[in-house]
Amino acid sequence: MQDVTKQILEFTSERNWDQFHTPENLAKSISIEAAELLECYQWNSNGDIQEIKEELADIMNYSLLLCSKLGLDPKEIILEKLEKNKAKYPVEKCFGKSDKYTKL
Amino acid sequence: MQDVTKQILEFTSERNWDQFHTPENLAKSISIEAAELLECYQWNSNGDIQEIKEELADIMNYSLLLCSKLGLDPKEIILEKLEKNKAKYPVEKCFGKSDKYTKL
Amino acid sequence: MQDVTKQILEFTSERNWDQFHTPENLAKSISIEAAELLECYQWNSNGDIQEIKEELADIMNYSLLLCSKLGLDPKEIILEKLEKNKAKYPVEKCFGKSDKYTKL
Amino acid sequence: MQDVTKQILEFTSERNWDQFHTPENLAKSISIEAAELLECYQWNSNGDIQEIKEELADIMNYSLLLCSKLGLDPKEIILEKLEKNKAKYPVEKCFGKSDKYTKL
Repeated sequence: MQDVTKQILEFTSERNWDQFHTPENLAKSISIEAAELLECYQWNSNGDIQEIKEELADIMNYSLLLCSKLGLDPKEIILEKLEKNKAKYPVEKCFGKSDKYTKL
Repeated sequence: MQDVTKQILEFTSERNWDQFHTPENLAKSISIEAAELLECYQWNSNGDIQEIKEELADIMNYSLLLCSKLGLDPKEIILEKLEKNKAKYPVEKCFGKSDKYTKL
Repeated sequence: MQDVTKQILEFTSERNWDQFHTPENLAKSISIEAAELLECYQWNSNGDIQEIKEELADIMNYSLLLCSKLGLDPKEIILEKLEKNKAKYPVEKCFGKSDKYTKL
Repeated sequence: MQDVTKQILEFTSERNWDQFHTPENLAKSISIEAAELLECYQWNSNGDIQEIKEELADIMNYSLLLCSKLGLDPKEIILEKLEKNKAKYPVEKCFGKSDKYTKL
């Protein structure tokens, strides 16, 4: 993923876009792209795979950019959160249940 | 990222949560987590870094899960979209401008 | 607002769109339109007023449709929630503060 | 709706919250509340009606606040957009179809 992040950073730096990429603006951008992905499923369960690929790529693109901006390692924060989720959702309490941990 | 995806898949499979993870539900989940990240910036530009880390991790977690579900390679689709963006946003037309390509 | 809702319902019924308007699909639609509004503010604080008007209208349109679908009275639920918020955010505790009630 | 807006404005003014309610922050807030509504439908099609009512109320609350902030009349902009949608979606072209106007 480091190589991918490097290419994303080059793309934005070549366009002098770094000035727009405040953490707040990147957070807004992730929400906007996430809704474009959701639009693929607005009226039914099967979206167009080409559009889905592109929207999903945009979400990950901005997520990697925000990680880079905040000095976070993507792999590290995902695994850290996974550990936290293991504690919040013990197998014996949540097996086969979609309830939020506050309702378990 | 393959190792991370593998750990995420183990986590969900141990909880028998695969049944809930339709592409549509994962798309909804990404939007929900993206809004929780946005909430860190709701009233100001500086969110709590611990909360930001966790929400960003959730977004990437669900994004990797959706990639896996749809048989997509995260790195591949990000780089593919980057190529497409290079064509949509030629340096000479968009240097230092935040306009959408439809308005350039 | 009853008259507005009536006109929205006529518009959808003339197009035989009622079949698509499940509460879940309307909830997705509100998120999608909300992100389109957010896009007006993606890179700066001043969006185009014409676009803002239209996206805001779409959000309220789908919200009224969801109220109608669930048999809810818009005015009633807004005022009910306002009462709840008064209890959650007592003036003396939250005056001039943007903290969430969980952090007050 | 004017009476409702008036009560919402009193609620925020009593708390000295007007300073936080820039159009941009209100747009973010609508997205955040829309995602909380979506969360009611995250894993299935039937959400808890009490939670749905409250999230829907929050969305409309912030939408009315943004209308007020921008000097827009809710009823007027909804009906204006409805007229525009009638032109974008002529009955004979879109009857019983959920396609976006760009794909009709």
